[in-house]
Amino acid sequence: MENSYGSSRKSKDVSLKELSDRLAEFAQVRGWDQYHSPRNLLLALVGEVGELSEIFQWKGEVARGLPNWSSDDKEHLEEELSDVLLYLVRLADVCGLDLGQAALTKIVKNARKYPILNQTQTSTFN
Amino acid sequence: MENSYGSSRKSKDVSLKELSDRLAEFAQVRGWDQYHSPRNLLLALVGEVGELSEIFQWKGEVARGLPNWSSDDKEHLEEELSDVLLYLVRLADVCGLDLGQAALTKIVKNARKYPILNQTQTSTFN
Amino acid sequence: MENSYGSSRKSKDVSLKELSDRLAEFAQVRGWDQYHSPRNLLLALVGEVGELSEIFQWKGEVARGLPNWSSDDKEHLEEELSDVLLYLVRLADVCGLDLGQAALTKIVKNARKYPILNQTQTSTFN
Amino acid sequence: MENSYGSSRKSKDVSLKELSDRLAEFAQVRGWDQYHSPRNLLLALVGEVGELSEIFQWKGEVARGLPNWSSDDKEHLEEELSDVLLYLVRLADVCGLDLGQAALTKIVKNARKYPILNQTQTSTFN
Repeated sequence: MENSYGSSRKSKDVSLKELSDRLAEFAQVRGWDQYHSPRNLLLALVGEVGELSEIFQWKGEVARGLPNWSSDDKEHLEEELSDVLLYLVRLADVCGLDLGQAALTKIVKNARKYPILNQTQTSTFN
Repeated sequence: MENSYGSSRKSKDVSLKELSDRLAEFAQVRGWDQYHSPRNLLLALVGEVGELSEIFQWKGEVARGLPNWSSDDKEHLEEELSDVLLYLVRLADVCGLDLGQAALTKIVKNARKYPILNQTQTSTFN
Repeated sequence: MENSYGSSRKSKDVSLKELSDRLAEFAQVRGWDQYHSPRNLLLALVGEVGELSEIFQWKGEVARGLPNWSSDDKEHLEEELSDVLLYLVRLADVCGLDLGQAALTKIVKNARKYPILNQTQTSTFN
Repeated sequence: MENSYGSSRKSKDVSLKELSDRLAEFAQVRGWDQYHSPRNLLLALVGEVGELSEIFQWKGEVARGLPNWSSDDKEHLEEELSDVLLYLVRLADVCGLDLGQAALTKIVKNARKYPILNQTQTSTFN
């Protein structure tokens, strides 16, 4: 399992559409569509955000890159991040929305809302 | 804006890697990397999950496909779903994790955990 | 355990101050104060809100009074509601804030923000 | 407003039952009971937890007692903590549960689950 992450830079580029399609099929063949109403999925998402938060709850500040985390802890974190993502993708799908396009649109909107400061202002970051 | 959703089936397939790269650049050119620690991003994610929940909070049960929602309400929902996604993608990135691969791995793990029932059992869903 | 809920109407009136004091002592005698920073407690609270949401996630709409819930399910819900409350009380305390007074103040503020409609307007609810 | 917090040590002891009763009346006289289903209130609670998280999201680690926070920031925090509490109290009430008793019961259960270590072990904290 770990090895796959070590070589992740070469890994194929996963799209939101692919995840959405796989989750739709996953639910369909298990007869789970009946449970996948928007608010059920939203509460399931909140549940997973809770599990994600539990990983970080007693740690104090955590540095980028997670130095000193064991591979088991990193794998656990990957699973909880994934659970949040999967319910989010599924929620968007049952709402009939295109999450990938919406995200791109939001990035463009944010770029307009927070314009890049001019050279003088940003020089402290160069 | 609405039209873009009507034609979304033809829209390009957005990948998690693309979103991650765009967000990394977005933060870098604005000098925001200093604020993007894992726990800061996690709390920002929780904030956006709260805004997503507010959309659904007084509605009672909501049907799939969001019948009778105005296009403004759908667009608002797309924005909040996107905000959750963008912080999630960014959180995974600053932790050094490959969210797309992790999500695919989790789907495979879930498929093993919840095997498809045999034909007799699933016939009620056919 | 169940009986105590049946007779809860006669039970003593629990105050926020009492809970706060008991939690402060609980942490102190266990040497846990070092872990009870505001953001640690906040993330622990989010974790418990996740567990609370999990109870409701696949149920569709739930009626007031929880008809048809088993006493075990109700007790489980009481525990998760309590966990959220206890972390909230503890968070307020380590921030040096008086949660009970703040809550009363907020009710008064809400009452001003949402005035009671006059008889004609409210008659549909009578 | 600030003064009331300065003198909060002498303030009356607010009970969960009092808050619950006031919120029940608040909803009743405004005709809001129809909106106060368990899952509506739960999502409203999640929304408020999001607003609470937003206060802490870009701050990095925050010290106990909130040194250097302005009184406005503290008051804002008190309001968000209160909003979470009020929805939690209301949720318990519409579920027919006694939150105060449940919280005391949970503290006793936690005390059994996490016994106080013996003198040798705890001596570092004495």
